Amino acid sequence: MKKLKIGIIGAGRIGKVHAISITNNVPEAEIKWIADYKLEAIGTWADDFGIPNKTDNHMDILNDPEVDAVLICSSTDTHADFVIDAAKAGKHIFCEKPVDLTIDKIKKSLTAVEEAGVKLQIGFNRRFDHNFKTIKNMVVDGKIGEPHIIKITSRDPEPPPVSYVKVSGGMFNDMTIHDFDMARYLSGSEVEEVYVSGAVLVNEEIGKAGDIDTALINLKMRNGAICVIDNSRKACYGYDQRAEVFGSLGKVESSNDRASTVVLSTSEGVMSEKPLYFFLERYMDSFRDEMKEFIEACVNDTPTPVTGNDGLQPAYIAKAAKLSYDENRPVKISEVK
Amino acid sequence: MKKLKIGIIGAGRIGKVHAISITNNVPEAEIKWIADYKLEAIGTWADDFGIPNKTDNHMDILNDPEVDAVLICSSTDTHADFVIDAAKAGKHIFCEKPVDLTIDKIKKSLTAVEEAGVKLQIGFNRRFDHNFKTIKNMVVDGKIGEPHIIKITSRDPEPPPVSYVKVSGGMFNDMTIHDFDMARYLSGSEVEEVYVSGAVLVNEEIGKAGDIDTALINLKMRNGAICVIDNSRKACYGYDQRAEVFGSLGKVESSNDRASTVVLSTSEGVMSEKPLYFFLERYMDSFRDEMKEFIEACVNDTPTPVTGNDGLQPAYIAKAAKLSYDENRPVKISEVK
Amino acid sequence: MKKLKIGIIGAGRIGKVHAISITNNVPEAEIKWIADYKLEAIGTWADDFGIPNKTDNHMDILNDPEVDAVLICSSTDTHADFVIDAAKAGKHIFCEKPVDLTIDKIKKSLTAVEEAGVKLQIGFNRRFDHNFKTIKNMVVDGKIGEPHIIKITSRDPEPPPVSYVKVSGGMFNDMTIHDFDMARYLSGSEVEEVYVSGAVLVNEEIGKAGDIDTALINLKMRNGAICVIDNSRKACYGYDQRAEVFGSLGKVESSNDRASTVVLSTSEGVMSEKPLYFFLERYMDSFRDEMKEFIEACVNDTPTPVTGNDGLQPAYIAKAAKLSYDENRPVKISEVK
Amino acid sequence: MKKLKIGIIGAGRIGKVHAISITNNVPEAEIKWIADYKLEAIGTWADDFGIPNKTDNHMDILNDPEVDAVLICSSTDTHADFVIDAAKAGKHIFCEKPVDLTIDKIKKSLTAVEEAGVKLQIGFNRRFDHNFKTIKNMVVDGKIGEPHIIKITSRDPEPPPVSYVKVSGGMFNDMTIHDFDMARYLSGSEVEEVYVSGAVLVNEEIGKAGDIDTALINLKMRNGAICVIDNSRKACYGYDQRAEVFGSLGKVESSNDRASTVVLSTSEGVMSEKPLYFFLERYMDSFRDEMKEFIEACVNDTPTPVTGNDGLQPAYIAKAAKLSYDENRPVKISEVK
Repeated sequence: MKKLKIGIIGAGRIGKVHAISITNNVPEAEIKWIADYKLEAIGTWADDFGIPNKTDNHMDILNDPEVDAVLICSSTDTHADFVIDAAKAGKHIFCEKPVDLTIDKIKKSLTAVEEAGVKLQIGFNRRFDHNFKTIKNMVVDGKIGEPHIIKITSRDPEPPPVSYVKVSGGMFNDMTIHDFDMARYLSGSEVEEVYVSGAVLVNEEIGKAGDIDTALINLKMRNGAICVIDNSRKACYGYDQRAEVFGSLGKVESSNDRASTVVLSTSEGVMSEKPLYFFLERYMDSFRDEMKEFIEACVNDTPTPVTGNDGLQPAYIAKAAKLSYDENRPVKISEVK
Repeated sequence: MKKLKIGIIGAGRIGKVHAISITNNVPEAEIKWIADYKLEAIGTWADDFGIPNKTDNHMDILNDPEVDAVLICSSTDTHADFVIDAAKAGKHIFCEKPVDLTIDKIKKSLTAVEEAGVKLQIGFNRRFDHNFKTIKNMVVDGKIGEPHIIKITSRDPEPPPVSYVKVSGGMFNDMTIHDFDMARYLSGSEVEEVYVSGAVLVNEEIGKAGDIDTALINLKMRNGAICVIDNSRKACYGYDQRAEVFGSLGKVESSNDRASTVVLSTSEGVMSEKPLYFFLERYMDSFRDEMKEFIEACVNDTPTPVTGNDGLQPAYIAKAAKLSYDENRPVKISEVK
Repeated sequence: MKKLKIGIIGAGRIGKVHAISITNNVPEAEIKWIADYKLEAIGTWADDFGIPNKTDNHMDILNDPEVDAVLICSSTDTHADFVIDAAKAGKHIFCEKPVDLTIDKIKKSLTAVEEAGVKLQIGFNRRFDHNFKTIKNMVVDGKIGEPHIIKITSRDPEPPPVSYVKVSGGMFNDMTIHDFDMARYLSGSEVEEVYVSGAVLVNEEIGKAGDIDTALINLKMRNGAICVIDNSRKACYGYDQRAEVFGSLGKVESSNDRASTVVLSTSEGVMSEKPLYFFLERYMDSFRDEMKEFIEACVNDTPTPVTGNDGLQPAYIAKAAKLSYDENRPVKISEVK
Repeated sequence: MKKLKIGIIGAGRIGKVHAISITNNVPEAEIKWIADYKLEAIGTWADDFGIPNKTDNHMDILNDPEVDAVLICSSTDTHADFVIDAAKAGKHIFCEKPVDLTIDKIKKSLTAVEEAGVKLQIGFNRRFDHNFKTIKNMVVDGKIGEPHIIKITSRDPEPPPVSYVKVSGGMFNDMTIHDFDMARYLSGSEVEEVYVSGAVLVNEEIGKAGDIDTALINLKMRNGAICVIDNSRKACYGYDQRAEVFGSLGKVESSNDRASTVVLSTSEGVMSEKPLYFFLERYMDSFRDEMKEFIEACVNDTPTPVTGNDGLQPAYIAKAAKLSYDENRPVKISEVK
């Protein structure tokens, strides 16, 4: 069997995660190229993973007729342009989230993808997580009947540097974007209206940078369900990632993953493990599985499991959330379209 | 020791619960009177509990100079008047929640109580629950630092009859009132603003009666914490009563009580017990403990643990919640004062 | 309805527990007498519970023709004689465990009871515990098929004084006796053979007093199931009381009861409550329920739920266990009969 | 860096597991040979993993001077001979458990290894499991003080075919051998005496084949701790793998791993996931980690974490266990040495 040839654009942390997944777990694909605008950032990468070619120009990859697909793992501000370039070059595309901070550029990217007829998958990896996928399957199987209330907890173990916060596009685009996707995924419906109660409680500097670090985000879904996301930039016990769907016939909920099931009982109390520390520990298997499914979609010419529209909708929700917070009022998605 | 003499006004379910508590667990008090406007409702009550006197006129109790305190367990529309009557008669008062559906009458009651210099305790029993009390103690002890996010889940196992819904004062006054109190209790702060996402998802008849049966209620607290209450009139797995306080140093959360810790593992799966069915099963110990503390406050002439103001504030919040739902906007408590 | 008249013999801790149960929860009975050979031990008891008569001679109770039943709560060495006296006096009998440390005296007691035709219930309260009762019901309902392996954990939070150990009859009679009963209860079968691995690991003084403080006790049951009890006199995290029945179709197991369901997560770890401290905290409800069922059996003239034979069989097992430990070999129950 | 060259002897299930581990997770090593006496058993193996050489004669591997280490994954009856052959050829050895069913042959193997000065690691993979390793670390760190009672539950989801049972060396050698190792590992001590309560409760045919399928195995450890292992060949809810160490300062215990943390609550009850089905699902990470540590020991010339003696001691215990069961008496290990 001929293997799918992959180029990775962006040699940072998430690019490496995907390289590991493909090398170890996706025998149908092989990585031919790695690109980073800082060539030195690639370091020993290419060798470690046996990647034969490296470049500081992503066009070298796109111009290689052997390359079937690219993984866009560069900084957010380059995503949309690279999607457009890759689409024009006829390559299938896996793009990290968010596609862009502006809806206009996201739309342009999607248009380019559509015109080129290539495949596009957005990196909403949490859909592939064992816990959330099990919840989704139970909801789809009707185990809890019609969804009424959806609760998503998503708290980071520590805030990013304030320098990053300033260019991040704000918490809704940077962090909650995953939860917006999760709300759509678990409900099987679209968001109609958003209301945000936000606050700066973790670090005043985040507030001075024009962002917030703590929020409750209410969503009204088209199918009638109501959803609340709670976010914090700092949960000092670790990465808190839970969901619950409550419906007419019951509820299904997940708790956090831990490094072991071990419990220690002493005169001090009964102690169990903290949640896994952060996304690399918590979601490693989901990164592997999203990559598997992307490659399968390319190989078998089937639709990708997370589409361009799945990249666009959360951007609308993030925009509405920002407006809701700024004006302290519920905002309809239709208002920001 | 001379025992405190108690009169119970209202021979319904909750009156009986308090009679049991006093008879079995409060040796400092004895029940001298039971009143119900339908004398036949008292039935064998008086005999079962060894209560020597029964009447269909609560004034018989208030006119008995031997009576030290009364428990007002009659229907909501009579609470305020009976509080006023009892205060004028110089009796200490335990009054079931809500004190009244109108803020005006609540205020009049509180004024009467203040003028008479008698004690008043409101029946927010959940403050005495082992789980919520433990959370509160941990928050007060600083275990989780400054509270940032508070989450309260409160779902009934089944909706009341629509006929009751019509006279209940609406879900916020009838059901969420406990959760408003819980938010104040756990945060140690006051509510400043309310926003409601409500829906009719359980029973259309409830909607036709002008009420809702499902809601997410966001509260902004004066101390900066943000809070979300989720309510449903129907959780088919039983009474779902949980809380979580998340703060700068951690989180503390409770899960539901169950009839046993037993877990059954078979080829079908791993099955544990459902939550206790409803408030009588779930909160019986808290009813006992609120009564103990009320009697102690009377005997020792100390303040009651749930004051008249604790009865008034949730009424403001309920009013603001209703306005928020009707106009789909955040409503400041100051707006309804 | 005429109330059953009760006399309590022994004014110690467990006598008081039963007095509370009857006073608060068994309206069909009333306590007429309290006896203790040290009259001063009764103290304010009689008054506290409204018991009209006190005596230092249990025969005063047995000679009162109005008394229907007695609770024998005195020291172990008096149990058998008091059972015989009470039987001769025609009183129904609730007797704390163990009936006696010698099988001969137990048999004499049972003969006296049989000849008198009175009821006898032994104080194996754990059969009435919500967890163990739920396990038993599931086993009886066939949820786990045929029982294959039974595991009982029974560890005290701290050892008794060595002075007590010396007169206790040894750990098997004093502590494990409850677990022997539990093995019979959960399996629905009789013990055929015992093997003990015992040790002195908690306190050397216990060893010097001729007893052990730690043990694994294997039981072969007549129905083919095999059972292991693990005992320790000191579990520094609290009273550890668990059971598991594993069978052809699954397993059913209980964990410990706790004061609340609250869990605290901080940077230190995830902490939940310790097990309830000791038997008074853990088994209070079971003491109440055994008393309810005893009174019901007396009132309705039905068999008691824990019979004289249920008092005799564990004594055989304890004797075989001692022999097994002394000679380090499996011992058949038939050998000690 | 020059990679360690590996030869795998035995192309069955466990050989494949190790091939996956090395290929995906041990960059310091590469597989040069795969051998199976049935060449057709290798099938596409060599190609799938990019293994350049295959043979039906393990000596081809041992004669290749480039090969540094071999993994002996063939049937149990060949282990000892292959260990001896490999030692003579100067290769480091990873050998699956048990080394042999006879103590004599195990000793000969160990002598050959010692004389050759090569490394030997035995495949007791459970020592590398996240749960058991965490327990071990806590015990070593003194979190539970001196160990008093150790409990190991080890139940398979279904029995092997009776044809396999007949050649397996019996349950103690085939299944409990892992638990004997776990008892040594968790206690940090040696077994002194064994007592077995065994039964045939799962399948009569296993009994007719001279084996048992259900057992409680008591172990007395040299450090004074007492241990009980419970085994069943059939736990219909899945692979049940738990351990608990109870000591002077507390207890530490693990529960089963599950496919997700998801819990479903409906009117039927509260349902969570079953334990992972069997050893391939449950212990995959431990197979990876034992291989990592073996390769590291070879590369760095450090001792292997599971030594030849760790392969020998459980064989003594298994022999004593068999004798204990046959003669229904406690058997000292010294008796079978």
